Amino acid sequence: MTPDLSISTLLKAYREGRRTPEKTILEVWARAAEDDPSIWINRPSLQHLQHYLRALEGESPDTKPLYGIPFAIKDNIDCVGLPTTAACPAWSYEAQESAYVVNLLIEAGAIPMGKTNLDQFATGLVGVRSPYGVPQNAFDARYIPGGSSSGSAVAVAKGLCSFALGTDTAGSGRVPASFNNLVGLKPTRGVLSCSGVVPACRTLDCVSIFALTAADAALVYNLTASFDEADAYARKRCMLREPAWPPRIGVPPMDQLDFFGNESAKRLFESAVKTVADMGWQIVETDISPFLNAARLLYEGPWVAERAAVISDLIAENPESILPVTRNIIKGGLKGTAIEAFKAQYRLAELKRISEATWNQADVLLMPTTGTIYTLAEVEDEPIQLNSNLGRYTNFMNLLDLCGCAVPAGFLDTGLPWGVTFYAPACGDALVLGCAGHFHSAVKLPLGKTTTPSSSAALPVIPAAEKKVPMMQIAVCGAHMEGLALHWQLSERSARLVQRTHSAPLYQLYLLPGSGRIPDRPGMVRVSEGGSAIEMEVWEIPQSTVGSFLEGIGAPLGLGKVQLADGSQVCGFVCEGIVADSAQDITSHGSWRQWLKATQ
Amino acid sequence: MTPDLSISTLLKAYREGRRTPEKTILEVWARAAEDDPSIWINRPSLQHLQHYLRALEGESPDTKPLYGIPFAIKDNIDCVGLPTTAACPAWSYEAQESAYVVNLLIEAGAIPMGKTNLDQFATGLVGVRSPYGVPQNAFDARYIPGGSSSGSAVAVAKGLCSFALGTDTAGSGRVPASFNNLVGLKPTRGVLSCSGVVPACRTLDCVSIFALTAADAALVYNLTASFDEADAYARKRCMLREPAWPPRIGVPPMDQLDFFGNESAKRLFESAVKTVADMGWQIVETDISPFLNAARLLYEGPWVAERAAVISDLIAENPESILPVTRNIIKGGLKGTAIEAFKAQYRLAELKRISEATWNQADVLLMPTTGTIYTLAEVEDEPIQLNSNLGRYTNFMNLLDLCGCAVPAGFLDTGLPWGVTFYAPACGDALVLGCAGHFHSAVKLPLGKTTTPSSSAALPVIPAAEKKVPMMQIAVCGAHMEGLALHWQLSERSARLVQRTHSAPLYQLYLLPGSGRIPDRPGMVRVSEGGSAIEMEVWEIPQSTVGSFLEGIGAPLGLGKVQLADGSQVCGFVCEGIVADSAQDITSHGSWRQWLKATQ
Repeated sequence: MTPDLSISTLLKAYREGRRTPEKTILEVWARAAEDDPSIWINRPSLQHLQHYLRALEGESPDTKPLYGIPFAIKDNIDCVGLPTTAACPAWSYEAQESAYVVNLLIEAGAIPMGKTNLDQFATGLVGVRSPYGVPQNAFDARYIPGGSSSGSAVAVAKGLCSFALGTDTAGSGRVPASFNNLVGLKPTRGVLSCSGVVPACRTLDCVSIFALTAADAALVYNLTASFDEADAYARKRCMLREPAWPPRIGVPPMDQLDFFGNESAKRLFESAVKTVADMGWQIVETDISPFLNAARLLYEGPWVAERAAVISDLIAENPESILPVTRNIIKGGLKGTAIEAFKAQYRLAELKRISEATWNQADVLLMPTTGTIYTLAEVEDEPIQLNSNLGRYTNFMNLLDLCGCAVPAGFLDTGLPWGVTFYAPACGDALVLGCAGHFHSAVKLPLGKTTTPSSSAALPVIPAAEKKVPMMQIAVCGAHMEGLALHWQLSERSARLVQRTHSAPLYQLYLLPGSGRIPDRPGMVRVSEGGSAIEMEVWEIPQSTVGSFLEGIGAPLGLGKVQLADGSQVCGFVCEGIVADSAQDITSHGSWRQWLKATQ
Repeated sequence: MTPDLSISTLLKAYREGRRTPEKTILEVWARAAEDDPSIWINRPSLQHLQHYLRALEGESPDTKPLYGIPFAIKDNIDCVGLPTTAACPAWSYEAQESAYVVNLLIEAGAIPMGKTNLDQFATGLVGVRSPYGVPQNAFDARYIPGGSSSGSAVAVAKGLCSFALGTDTAGSGRVPASFNNLVGLKPTRGVLSCSGVVPACRTLDCVSIFALTAADAALVYNLTASFDEADAYARKRCMLREPAWPPRIGVPPMDQLDFFGNESAKRLFESAVKTVADMGWQIVETDISPFLNAARLLYEGPWVAERAAVISDLIAENPESILPVTRNIIKGGLKGTAIEAFKAQYRLAELKRISEATWNQADVLLMPTTGTIYTLAEVEDEPIQLNSNLGRYTNFMNLLDLCGCAVPAGFLDTGLPWGVTFYAPACGDALVLGCAGHFHSAVKLPLGKTTTPSSSAALPVIPAAEKKVPMMQIAVCGAHMEGLALHWQLSERSARLVQRTHSAPLYQLYLLPGSGRIPDRPGMVRVSEGGSAIEMEVWEIPQSTVGSFLEGIGAPLGLGKVQLADGSQVCGFVCEGIVADSAQDITSHGSWRQWLKATQ
């Protein structure tokens, strides 16, 4: 049985003293040693792991947010002390230091359990293009694990680590997530540093995160999304401004979708759309042709030259060291001209501009992560076309500068897992994580290969909710009430009525005669004896506008705390007691409106 | 004598009825017919101009901000009814509609006086590479006019139009400005649409503005900086957040500058730096090597492939129709590979990242626009190298996504004008216009070829000043005073002390005993008789934070208006009068600090 190693589960066990990092790490290490060896290209020795465990002494989940959490690293990302092979032995080197993101994770208390297998040079979506063997799909070894981050995904699904790093240029962080029942976050390009990562297409590459839940992925994202000046393509962490919640979900018309004959996948997608609708979220039919057109550019266009740029020396000097399928793809990049490269960039800019209109209709798009899944045998027969089919819904994402989160959606008739992806423009990471998390909890599926069901306990923190404009309630009793002379001072601040009520019976109401442009107003004075309940309205305005509102209030009035009929205290109009010396007491009217009516 | 056709001068004359657009346009048209024919490639007929004049009937400067203002258009920008040649007759076509920016200008009331000469295909900074002749430098016909927007600059300098459109990929909007005593704005890439503009390097091209003053350039910028969805490289207008004013001006160390032997230019640059210092602006010595390194990439790198992409068919079919110098440069772009194109982009991304550190030290950079100026004879002898020298301080700007404004700085020993450029990151258009305007007014130079002196009357509107964070004063008398228990609530809001003072002698001070985490506080109650002056401090906090500050204030305290010793009223702490019923009167201490001292 596969243990539930989700981060929250492990941290809870550590906090409650039911586990120690040492016990977890040793168990996981031993299980990995007995499981499928094709998952890993290199693993640290037990001695090496002791070094990480010792660094946790005196620490706790309170001081290290990933205290004792085992993780895996795709073998195109450096981890000091282990080689980086990119699944090409002839190309491998000993990492002298860890990649920027790996350092951040270790610093946070996470423990690297090894370097995982991948499609050579991260070129492929199948997970079978490696001289280190094919990691077995966690659910059915006859099927492909998905790639290029095959080992990372399988390791998480099989409980050999809590989360894993992948990379994602064309879909390598999402396709294997779908095929192994995982959440796969492809963050906004550049927000996770690529320092210490073997480039595929350097202008498009992303580090990605595999996890059992969106909450786990969000936690890892939060700890690694840190600006790295040394990466020329790094970008500062960013957030779409005030995303709507719940978001409007764009869904393609069925005739734009191709499931490559997999009717079961089609039904799961229809069911996923229904789940979203049942969650009460708005569904908007959305034309995805600009996205599909951009997807075709990736391997048909000049970006493959970026792959060729990385290994052009190896191709020239030792071509046999590269897998034939990989070599043939990447060699295509040697031929392109600079003119073709620029023309493709123009075309991409045009498609990007066209695609942007989508985001006026929908906040997030929902698509299949892949149209289908293939067996090892099928891919062996037709290695290029089937690989290409798998990229239909993933290839465009980095080209168009989007972010997305793949999430499980159910199981196919074959018993294989299958998933969907929520997409948003760059900086929508929190938004897509939030969508994936809510969806995952709604579909109630086991996490990875475990029997733990997805639940709303594991919803990611959605900064969308934190981004709400802070509001502040203001209780008014006079000229600011609805329809009266100074109400515009509230309505120009987009005020919203919270309640019509009365004050506690503690106040006297005085008439403050107006002068010039100031209308008559009442002043509510709290008294020890002889107070009445005064009619009030509670309005809500953005907290940031309270200062300017206050500036417009003249003596003897001010804003303090007012006690309402239900005993609660809210911010509201108070009046200096000095008015009692000379002003007319109109308390008996019980309300400024009544006073106005009586004296009209 | 050259008339002063600056926009403000013309609009004033129209408003005062001293002129009509018709008179201006006919005069200017007739003067152009008698002046240097090499300035123009095509001019509209008088009949054609009548069409524009008729469109102004019933209008005024109040309804059309460029009412009756003559302008010129570089002949790589479409104007309906005239051919677009890009200075290559074999390549020319009849424009079926005007470029996006030209339409905006005509809509605003401006009248196109013709299409101006340029270095063929906007390739060159010299202004002599055209089959339509060489526009004479407005100050000395032995010298080059500068390019590629040669005709546009000369037309403005000679009073043949009020302003002109150019394009600027490598410096074509700044170099001719410098050589003809003009302001030349190269806006943030994409903010002015390139729809209807013949591409040079499509990823780098900008439409630029030549004008007599920075204020005129700012006006034209404001009217043309409008997002064009149809241009895939268009960007929404943007503004650097809260730019400091006056800005810190970065100046390169003299050993990074090369004036190519022109000692007079060197002296003018030193004098320009002194002028800025005398204006009271801070000067910061700034390493410009990342900028100079990026400049070299433009013609040595693959971007010339973009130029080749535009005319590859013409090169193949009719190479003789292209000037030999232009053909040789652009043909270089046919050779590059896609790998080279991507590698150069990586290198550029690295240089851009390095260059970004500059903007932590300085808000704006000041550099020579060019190191020197050459005669026609000199450029004929050495056409490539001297052209290249002229791009030393301009080539990097679009590559690094900067904006800049060239501005006159004085006259060389030879009598030729010479200028400097203020640079800032993308979205700094208002900032560089502001710098150029203030500098121009400080150096007091004639405008273009006129005798009108530059003056502060023509300063551009600088939105920087409007961006200040609104602050609000809060008078405190108790635990919020400096060093006391609740002062952190002010300091966490970045409060600034405005004054230490007393209230007017109208208040009584009461002790409000604390409880739990609330410390003892005083309450100031205004009274009709028996009041005293109470010690107060007035602090200033951002207005937007007053709401949250108020939220933390408990009854019986609130914020209202407090009268100070000098009779003024400020927002400050007030107290409900009810406290007088039970609280201890500590007025005789005159101050909360004194009370604390007495009771310690």
